[in-house]
Amino acid sequence: MQAGKPILYSYFRSSCSWRVRIALALKGIDYETVPINLIKDGGQQFSKDFQALNPMKQVPALKIDGITIHQSLAIIEYLEETRPTPRLLPQDPKKRASVRMISDLIAGGIQPLQNLSVLKQVGEEFQLTWAQNAIISGFNALEQILQSTAGTYCVGDEVTMADLCLVPQVANAERFKVDCTPYPTISSINKRLLVLEAFQVTHPCRQPDTPTELRA
Amino acid sequence: MQAGKPILYSYFRSSCSWRVRIALALKGIDYETVPINLIKDGGQQFSKDFQALNPMKQVPALKIDGITIHQSLAIIEYLEETRPTPRLLPQDPKKRASVRMISDLIAGGIQPLQNLSVLKQVGEEFQLTWAQNAIISGFNALEQILQSTAGTYCVGDEVTMADLCLVPQVANAERFKVDCTPYPTISSINKRLLVLEAFQVTHPCRQPDTPTELRA
Repeated sequence: MQAGKPILYSYFRSSCSWRVRIALALKGIDYETVPINLIKDGGQQFSKDFQALNPMKQVPALKIDGITIHQSLAIIEYLEETRPTPRLLPQDPKKRASVRMISDLIAGGIQPLQNLSVLKQVGEEFQLTWAQNAIISGFNALEQILQSTAGTYCVGDEVTMADLCLVPQVANAERFKVDCTPYPTISSINKRLLVLEAFQVTHPCRQPDTPTELRA
Repeated sequence: MQAGKPILYSYFRSSCSWRVRIALALKGIDYETVPINLIKDGGQQFSKDFQALNPMKQVPALKIDGITIHQSLAIIEYLEETRPTPRLLPQDPKKRASVRMISDLIAGGIQPLQNLSVLKQVGEEFQLTWAQNAIISGFNALEQILQSTAGTYCVGDEVTMADLCLVPQVANAERFKVDCTPYPTISSINKRLLVLEAFQVTHPCRQPDTPTELRA
């Protein structure tokens, strides 16, 4: 199978898509975006065509090297193994464990509880509190963990996969009106990351499918 | 820091703890179990001592090589990198991507939605339906994915990290009375794995903290 330019199926606001967009940007991988609008038409992720691509009916999915990968961390690990420069996992196995622990905490312990499909099930009345609880409980733990792993960024002074998870999750926290003042470590790392080019060009307010009123 | 025998903080019924127990068994790593009862005393994971160990107040956590790692997949990846034999990730990056995709689908897309702390929030009346919905929606996707990745096991013919996630999740499905007949691929892989020694000795019904009435 000959693969052309990688294709990223993405939604501007999806925090999991943003993680992968940052990885692609940092590694300088040129790709094409196919927007999947999670709201329009009852959710384009439910279309037959997209379900064939990702039976989980979620973004992101990445077509690359003749295969389609979904699950953002699996995509990032694949990019890391096949395009190792610049690296997103440290060399030291103990530091790699810290990076994966933080990434999994966000990708498995926070985001799944406040994503669109779960909030739909919770019901409109309780959505905000539900999402806030998930984020606050995760951030309480994360703040404590980062105090022993962080340097300039989440783990030491290099940008790692953990940072790719942190920034989009903080954006979700802001969207759900979580007060981030009890999280000075999270907030200051987030601030330092947001000024980096790879985080700026991949920001939800600058995507091909960002609605005009949300563009910046 | 001199490390003695690794210590696994585990709960017999926790599916995430079971994943790690299988990895330790397959790799022949001798370890000590410290049971954390998620129900007794209002939940021993909420104790000050345990929170200092894992601020997420979840099992498993593994003390090894002078560090403490939590998040089951981060633990398994660390074991894989430091004790590579027998391997739990294939050599081919594309197959590794499939393994991680399936693992993340279960660890991030199914289990977090049906774990104890979330079900508590959902309320007793809706717990069973909520858990079943999460598992059914995940298994619908997983069955389809496995049809293109599976051999004897989830990805090809070697036991991988994906299998370590599958078996405990099927056990949860059975506990929540999910009808697994629509999932012949999942069911037959699960059956083939359950007879392997590493899956048998680590089974929830054979742990130091398994209550007498549930032992087998």
